[in-house]
Amino acid sequence: MKTPENVIQLLKRKKITISLVESCTAGYASYLLTKVPGSSKVFKGGIIPYTLEVKNKFFKIPLPLLKKTQGVSSSIALVLARDILKLCKSDVGASVVGFAGPGARMGIKAGTIFIAVCSKAKARVKKIIIKGNRDMVRKRASMLLLAFVYESIKKESI
Amino acid sequence: MKTPENVIQLLKRKKITISLVESCTAGYASYLLTKVPGSSKVFKGGIIPYTLEVKNKFFKIPLPLLKKTQGVSSSIALVLARDILKLCKSDVGASVVGFAGPGARMGIKAGTIFIAVCSKAKARVKKIIIKGNRDMVRKRASMLLLAFVYESIKKESI
Repeated sequence: MKTPENVIQLLKRKKITISLVESCTAGYASYLLTKVPGSSKVFKGGIIPYTLEVKNKFFKIPLPLLKKTQGVSSSIALVLARDILKLCKSDVGASVVGFAGPGARMGIKAGTIFIAVCSKAKARVKKIIIKGNRDMVRKRASMLLLAFVYESIKKESI
Repeated sequence: MKTPENVIQLLKRKKITISLVESCTAGYASYLLTKVPGSSKVFKGGIIPYTLEVKNKFFKIPLPLLKKTQGVSSSIALVLARDILKLCKSDVGASVVGFAGPGARMGIKAGTIFIAVCSKAKARVKKIIIKGNRDMVRKRASMLLLAFVYESIKKESI
């Protein structure tokens, strides 16, 4: 698994900037990235749209769709990643949405996560299922988001 | 020191919602608050304006002022806390800005932090100096922000 240092180094090497949208992880991936001194050269910032109302406010996703999906879908992850790139004027935008648990919510099992990475030209999204308690799911989702960012940029598939 | 659980319980008891702006902590306080299951009932979300450009974009703070202060001042902390309350339509807005280090930046010593808490009627801001390495400063600043929120709401001084 790539470390936050690896991601920051790769972004610096490629001279590209990133911004993040974190729903279920609520800032943990951004915290990890910015543990690296000098990360402000490539990490611009992000939004934590923890409630459906805030997802609607910043990303204009219709509330009925948010209520139906609980904000947990591949298309919503893609919209968030694409829009944060525009809002923060970064080269890459990435997002994570999901349900960390405990239990299940409207048929969505705990540990169901979608991660997305977008550039101006391309977009990638991935569904992942993570086992474990709420905190384990959120930490693992954050690490997997950063790994997905690394892989997407490295392969120039983004 | 109050735990994130204490803060969530107090917000629930008072039936008030909160949103956060985290600059130097980049999401760690939001991550702590949302470790508590059911926190989405009172935590609406927030913004991580890590760069000066993103502070200007979301909070309309003039870039010359941001460059002069490096975004680290009591008045900037207050603007962020007041504006996130409006943006997220929450009852309380809180913010943290500062320089976590290492070293110093334009005369600002590592560990210089401002935390602010605003309601629709009142505002409080505090300067704190935290000793320790980058990660210790950021973790401690996050805990002190949550403690300040708790104290401000508890005393109804907010």
